[in-house]
Amino acid sequence: MSCLFCEIAAGRRQSRTVYQDERCVAFLDHRPLFHGHSLVVPRAHHETLAELPEELVAPLFHAARRVATAVERALAAEGTFVAINNRVSQSVPHLHVHVVPRRRKDGLRGFFWPRQPYASEEQAAQVQAALREELRRLEGG
Amino acid sequence: MSCLFCEIAAGRRQSRTVYQDERCVAFLDHRPLFHGHSLVVPRAHHETLAELPEELVAPLFHAARRVATAVERALAAEGTFVAINNRVSQSVPHLHVHVVPRRRKDGLRGFFWPRQPYASEEQAAQVQAALREELRRLEGG
Repeated sequence: MSCLFCEIAAGRRQSRTVYQDERCVAFLDHRPLFHGHSLVVPRAHHETLAELPEELVAPLFHAARRVATAVERALAAEGTFVAINNRVSQSVPHLHVHVVPRRRKDGLRGFFWPRQPYASEEQAAQVQAALREELRRLEGG
Repeated sequence: MSCLFCEIAAGRRQSRTVYQDERCVAFLDHRPLFHGHSLVVPRAHHETLAELPEELVAPLFHAARRVATAVERALAAEGTFVAINNRVSQSVPHLHVHVVPRRRKDGLRGFFWPRQPYASEEQAAQVQAALREELRRLEGG
């Protein structure tokens, strides 16, 4: 089974590359939210952020930070939207960081989704406790 | 001028903390997209990803990756949405990584925004060239 982003990373498939280093490559999204919308991917195939090996976290986000800086400067953007869809809403099952130039009133409703308030402080505390416990487990392991 | 997230990081303001280490802290968003929606922030005050000092990139995203893993496991999520709004759509001017649990058909229209296609290959090539040039400049500097 071939993976589109593995093909691009290996140079076997054309893309509009904007950046590359030993571990990562960045290229223009072919269906941009706004012009300059780039995708930063690890060369190695990993599906989600949770599955990315620890040693690739720093290289990937150093590249993403650099691409975000370039998008702001080169395209005179007022800001950027940097996002990862892990599994749900993920188009290509190879981890990719979207870097999207933003301008005020650009029509992108960043966080205009309906909110889901906690029904009570107890409910919020339960969610908090579940996350804390899992994070302590991750620290231990 | 006090900053809400600096106050939280310093423990001077209550929050539902789920994780903390020397450089970062994560807590529940008080207006969650979905329950368990967490924010991961560097303790030090930096407004955007582009402004985050290089040495804080790895600690911040190691924490974000860990919180994303915990959100999936502890809340039985099918995936996560991990996102940063830099300046535009940014509510608190202290860099924060949203980690949001996702489930299929949860109603969150991740990337359902109108696309802005390139008018021509030439236009795409121009955008690519501008980004490449800026990224070469960043590498040099």
